[in-house]
Amino acid sequence: MRSLTPADLNPAVQNVQYAVRGELAIKAEDLRAKLESKSHGLPFERIINSNIGNPQQKGLDQPPITFTRQIAALMEYPPLAEVVKDVWPSDVINRAKELQAEIGSVGAYSHSQGVPIIRRSVAQFIEERDGYPADPEDIFLTAGASSGVSLLLNMLITPNKTGVLIPIPQYPLYTAALAQFSGIPLPYHLSEVDGWSTSLDEIKSAVEKAEKDGVDARALVIINPGNPTGALLDWRTMENIVKLCEEHGLVLLADEVYQSNLHSPDTHPFHSFKQVVRRLHSKVPLFSFHSISKGVTGECGRRGGYFECTNIDPEVRALIYKMVSVGLCPPLSGQVGIDCMVRPPKPNDPSYPLWKNETDSTHAALASRTKLMAQRLNALPGISCVTSPGALYLFPKIELPDLAVQEAEKQGKTPDTLYALELLDQTGICVVPGSGFGQKDGEHHYRLTCLCPGVEDYVDALESFHLKFLKKYGAEV
Amino acid sequence: MRSLTPADLNPAVQNVQYAVRGELAIKAEDLRAKLESKSHGLPFERIINSNIGNPQQKGLDQPPITFTRQIAALMEYPPLAEVVKDVWPSDVINRAKELQAEIGSVGAYSHSQGVPIIRRSVAQFIEERDGYPADPEDIFLTAGASSGVSLLLNMLITPNKTGVLIPIPQYPLYTAALAQFSGIPLPYHLSEVDGWSTSLDEIKSAVEKAEKDGVDARALVIINPGNPTGALLDWRTMENIVKLCEEHGLVLLADEVYQSNLHSPDTHPFHSFKQVVRRLHSKVPLFSFHSISKGVTGECGRRGGYFECTNIDPEVRALIYKMVSVGLCPPLSGQVGIDCMVRPPKPNDPSYPLWKNETDSTHAALASRTKLMAQRLNALPGISCVTSPGALYLFPKIELPDLAVQEAEKQGKTPDTLYALELLDQTGICVVPGSGFGQKDGEHHYRLTCLCPGVEDYVDALESFHLKFLKKYGAEV
Repeated sequence: MRSLTPADLNPAVQNVQYAVRGELAIKAEDLRAKLESKSHGLPFERIINSNIGNPQQKGLDQPPITFTRQIAALMEYPPLAEVVKDVWPSDVINRAKELQAEIGSVGAYSHSQGVPIIRRSVAQFIEERDGYPADPEDIFLTAGASSGVSLLLNMLITPNKTGVLIPIPQYPLYTAALAQFSGIPLPYHLSEVDGWSTSLDEIKSAVEKAEKDGVDARALVIINPGNPTGALLDWRTMENIVKLCEEHGLVLLADEVYQSNLHSPDTHPFHSFKQVVRRLHSKVPLFSFHSISKGVTGECGRRGGYFECTNIDPEVRALIYKMVSVGLCPPLSGQVGIDCMVRPPKPNDPSYPLWKNETDSTHAALASRTKLMAQRLNALPGISCVTSPGALYLFPKIELPDLAVQEAEKQGKTPDTLYALELLDQTGICVVPGSGFGQKDGEHHYRLTCLCPGVEDYVDALESFHLKFLKKYGAEV
Repeated sequence: MRSLTPADLNPAVQNVQYAVRGELAIKAEDLRAKLESKSHGLPFERIINSNIGNPQQKGLDQPPITFTRQIAALMEYPPLAEVVKDVWPSDVINRAKELQAEIGSVGAYSHSQGVPIIRRSVAQFIEERDGYPADPEDIFLTAGASSGVSLLLNMLITPNKTGVLIPIPQYPLYTAALAQFSGIPLPYHLSEVDGWSTSLDEIKSAVEKAEKDGVDARALVIINPGNPTGALLDWRTMENIVKLCEEHGLVLLADEVYQSNLHSPDTHPFHSFKQVVRRLHSKVPLFSFHSISKGVTGECGRRGGYFECTNIDPEVRALIYKMVSVGLCPPLSGQVGIDCMVRPPKPNDPSYPLWKNETDSTHAALASRTKLMAQRLNALPGISCVTSPGALYLFPKIELPDLAVQEAEKQGKTPDTLYALELLDQTGICVVPGSGFGQKDGEHHYRLTCLCPGVEDYVDALESFHLKFLKKYGAEV
């Protein structure tokens, strides 16, 4: 009988890498299981999953927004309205009724592109954000932003021919999807010394290299606010990127899932690529992604997101519809979550005061934690950390002693993986090595989320580990 | 500037077809929009979407199970427990608390393979069903069965080399995924005259043909209970299928999503392939799929499903884990739905009487509707319909007059598409032409769900349309 071994599988599968849930995350799960035994013998009492932007996970416990959850509960069990009608705010009850009248049961498949009324809400949200019209027919609701990215890359890539420009460092969904669909990654480096800024020249030389190598550079991925960097693009750079896409015939994929995670909106505001494209009257084909998993919503588990098509040929849009229809529809819980995100309570609504309080607290906690963590990390020998004005992460650079580099080599690991594994073993803190996102040769980083509870203790643990690590491998501290 | 036209896309995308949400479904949506105007001028007042197994959709309104929905509402908003504790059954409150203690928030990402406690529940359900052990590590929770099928086909297929045996007629997810991932479909015909039975000889000759054509036949898809046929495999046939897989080195993909939709369980019981494989001590690699979208749960919109790996190399399983981790996790609403499906109330639980009543009614309604529809269709000239003992569908064969075939040719459509379009135009009933599932040359069918409300009126409409259609195209009636 013929067996089924890894060698029998689609070779593209072997090439897929996704460090956010890779070796470190798997080891963290094993340690978490060990902690359940009283005599675990580990030097910590809990695992802190700083490897993934998952605000509501156990132990982090960023509270969900009450407005969203009350609506969700009513959607699940409509007779509940009678029970809570004098207790829950009237706008919550009304919103749930409005959605039920349109959707019917959340247990039914919806339109494959997403519930029409929710797509209309998304279009209105975009119009208000950008000052330019948006068409519900151009909106596709998805199971989180990832599934939209993955689908569109699959559609854009002719295997082993099509190249896609990706930032380095990048969120590894992009390299994973490129490997899965046999696309060719065309990396362009972000400039760490310049606050992880995006350089047009870097992108241009990546395009020119592709041309020389006979690769068809077809799409440009921009992550703004950046992941893992937290950087924000300024308007001028965005204009130049759009012009570069025009010049080189690139489709622009704008990953904007952190658009509401802004820690210094006055100095570092967010602009959407949709707005830039419209302001320039550009015809660049653009797909823009958003999600309920990040922001202050943090509803990762519902799997809700959307993408908007701008300047996309209706025939291409029809093909996208065909492809999403094979998967039937995105989860209704995510779709309802999208509605709550893009249509939050208004100042005079009964839900507004609580909603405002909850979202303000989450914004403030994230901004102050990010600032404090960056300050404390920067004060350490051998660490430099760009203070990120957006998103949920820091991506500190670590100088590792030669002995550590040699030890990593001996173990067949990258030096930053050695560092991250020892950090996990000694503190229970799980971060992702920089090699999972890409970095310049000889450099080392790690990504950590700024979602930890008790930030002082958390940074104490990072600090004391770092100093011990340097000592262990013979650095002068 | 370079445009983005269909010709610029991955050519595999062009080849994808998914008739369940194709031309007919799109036209039905257009007609539904028209119906909103008072002066619509259409000869019917509503669209009945018999094209898709979507029990809870508006107008069909198969009620969701109260037990499932109360738990879902509590998961969304845990403080609700205080409000309803004296009103809702205690087992509902306790189940929600148990799940919350393990999961935390449904707004957090779970383990990529699915929440461990829910995978344990699934394993126990399988053990009780089959009488053989099941390991939670072999269970992957998914966003409906479709996403599992799609992922595994992507992994099993080396583009343009790997062949996959699929039944004809088949559920078009299989041909769609094969087209998307450049796999080679190896069709084997089911025998309509024999109640849509599966013939070993048909499968063998498809394997032999593949060998002759230099195609690597790698996997065999079996849909049991059948979609669109509703047929059930008997034990002996299943044993022979497993042996055939051993002999030809085939991976078995068992689509068992209709396993609890049984209309005559005494004469046509369901056996899982897992049980057959274990009973035979076979080493055939098997993936078995199940879902909350069908059965009497009908929770399509939650997107919940799972697959079990049997005889799968741990290294292959690790690769599957890597691939699902890129998509982060299945929606929590679907995972919680799975828990409710595999761990329903027990006879002494307070929720049991209502649960029993609700599920019995849904089973009975489906069985009686299926029987009545098949009888009435069979009584018509030019229609013959296998009475299906399972699933949610009928797949009647229709003899079309020559003039209708010629008219279809003129319109550039298949004859069954012409029939289905006219049916939709005249009655508002949307079915899927048999060509979307595959059928023998010169034969014509359509698939309709047995989910309609008011079955007598519904069948009256089917009948009178059919007779008019025959007359219109010159058949003697």
